[in-house]
Amino acid sequence: MNKEQLINIIQRKKSFLCVGLDTDLNKIPPHLLSCDDPIFEFNKAIIDATLPYTIAYKPNLAFYETLGWKGLLSLDKTMDYLRKKSQEVFVIADAKRGDIGNTSTQYALSFFNREQQNLNFDAVTVAPYMGEDSVKPFLGFEDKWVILLALTSNKGANDFQLLSSNGKRLFEHVLEISQTWADDHKMMYVVGATQAQMLTNIRKIVPNHFLLIPGVGAQGGNLDDVVKYGFNKDCGLIINSSRGIIYADKTENFAEAAATEAQKIQKQMATYL
Amino acid sequence: MNKEQLINIIQRKKSFLCVGLDTDLNKIPPHLLSCDDPIFEFNKAIIDATLPYTIAYKPNLAFYETLGWKGLLSLDKTMDYLRKKSQEVFVIADAKRGDIGNTSTQYALSFFNREQQNLNFDAVTVAPYMGEDSVKPFLGFEDKWVILLALTSNKGANDFQLLSSNGKRLFEHVLEISQTWADDHKMMYVVGATQAQMLTNIRKIVPNHFLLIPGVGAQGGNLDDVVKYGFNKDCGLIINSSRGIIYADKTENFAEAAATEAQKIQKQMATYL
Repeated sequence: MNKEQLINIIQRKKSFLCVGLDTDLNKIPPHLLSCDDPIFEFNKAIIDATLPYTIAYKPNLAFYETLGWKGLLSLDKTMDYLRKKSQEVFVIADAKRGDIGNTSTQYALSFFNREQQNLNFDAVTVAPYMGEDSVKPFLGFEDKWVILLALTSNKGANDFQLLSSNGKRLFEHVLEISQTWADDHKMMYVVGATQAQMLTNIRKIVPNHFLLIPGVGAQGGNLDDVVKYGFNKDCGLIINSSRGIIYADKTENFAEAAATEAQKIQKQMATYL
Repeated sequence: MNKEQLINIIQRKKSFLCVGLDTDLNKIPPHLLSCDDPIFEFNKAIIDATLPYTIAYKPNLAFYETLGWKGLLSLDKTMDYLRKKSQEVFVIADAKRGDIGNTSTQYALSFFNREQQNLNFDAVTVAPYMGEDSVKPFLGFEDKWVILLALTSNKGANDFQLLSSNGKRLFEHVLEISQTWADDHKMMYVVGATQAQMLTNIRKIVPNHFLLIPGVGAQGGNLDDVVKYGFNKDCGLIINSSRGIIYADKTENFAEAAATEAQKIQKQMATYL
C-alpha cells in the first residue's frame, strides 16, 4: 500500500486506529481452546468485528513464534483471511528485526515477498541499532514500508534512546540519519504514546512522516495528547491498541466487546479528522 | 548450559568454534533439493560432519523464517536432532530480538522453554535499543544466556554504535549499563571480528564475559587478531563461522568439505588453548 492509499482509507473510514493482534492462548476466551486452531479462530472473529473501525492490524510476531511452527501457521492463515476479506487494510508485522545485510534480506523476504506462504505484510518494524545496511534490505520492495524504532513507550527507552551525543539524543540521531536512507513514502517511525509531550519536537524533525504510536490505553498514553502534539496535514498517525480492544471481554461475547471498544476509539478519532 | 560447562567443553574439544547454520535453499547443494526437507537434511549432514570440531551451533532465525512455518519446522527438527546427538554443545538462536517486557517474555519462551516444540536453545542474541525491560525477560531462565549486541561487524555499526555521549561511545554504554542487569554467568556480548583492534578496550569494560565474535572469514575478520586482543583466562571467545564452513563445497561432498574447513580452524584454535 502506498502513502496516498493509506491516507484515503483513513479519510474514508474516519479512523487511524490499528488493532494489535497480540494473541495469547492464556488470554483468549477459554471456550476457543477446544478449536483446532484457537489463535486463528480468535483473530478471525476479532477481524470480522473490528474491521469497520480500523485501518490497520498489527500482529506481534512474538505471540506466534512462542507457539513454534504451529504459531506461524496460525499467522499465515490469519494473513490469508485478512487479505481475502479486505484489500483496504494496512498490515504491520511487529517484529523489530534488524541484522547484517544478507540476513535482513531474508527477513524482508519473510514478511514482504511470499511464495511459500501468505505473509504479505505492508510494513515491518525494524530496530535501528545495526545501522543503514541492516535497514536498507527492507526498503527494496514496492509499496512496502519500514517502521523504524525511534522512541519507544517502555521504561527501558531511557537507558540508551535518550543518551545525548553532539547536542542530540540517540532517537533524534535515528530520526535524522535514517532520512538519508528513505523518505516518508517508505519509512515511518515508532514513537510511544507515553512520550506524547516529546512529539512536538519529533514533528520538527519528521514533519511529514507517519508515526506508529503504541502505548495508548493499557500502557497509559492519552489519545488527546498524541493528536494534539503529533497530528500533521495527512493525519500522520497510526495509533495502536492491543489489549484494550482484543481482551475487552473473555466470554463468548468477546468479539462484540472488541467491536464496541474499537468503535469508541474510532468515534473519538473521527472528531479529529 | 552454565559457564563452567561451557569452559569444560572448550578445553576438552580444544575448540571455541561456532558453526553458523545460515541455511539457504539457494546455496545448499542442488542434489538436496529433491529431499522432503532439504534444510533439515543439510543441517543434519553439517552437524554430523562438524560436531567433533565445534563447541556451538548458531542457526540464524531469518533463514528459517523466510520459509514461513515450514522453515520453523525444519529448525525444530534440527534442534531435536542436535539435542539427541550431543548434550555437550552450546546452541545459540541468532534472532536479535528485543521488544517491550510482555512481548520479550513471549520471545524468551519461544527460544528457551519449549513445550510445543524443541527450540531448547542455550542462548539468544538480543538488540539493546529498547533497554533493560526489553532484555530482562530473557534473563529469568536457569543456565540460559542473553548475548547482547554491542559492536557489530557491519558497516552500519558506524551509524549509531560509535556515537559518543559523555565521553563514551554507545556500545560502551551498552557494555556498562547492561552489567547492572546480569553478570558474566548470564550475559555475553556480540563483538564483530572486523573490529578486532577495539577488543583491547572492550576487554577493559568486560574482562570476564564471553564474547560471540562473528565476521571471521567471509566478512574479513582475522582469527589471530581476535585472539590476540580478545582472549581472557577462560578463553572468553566463541568464534562464529558460517559461509566459510557450510558452503565450502556445493557437490555431494559438501559435508566432508565442511568438516575439513572446521577442522582447519579447530587446529588453529588448539594452538591458542
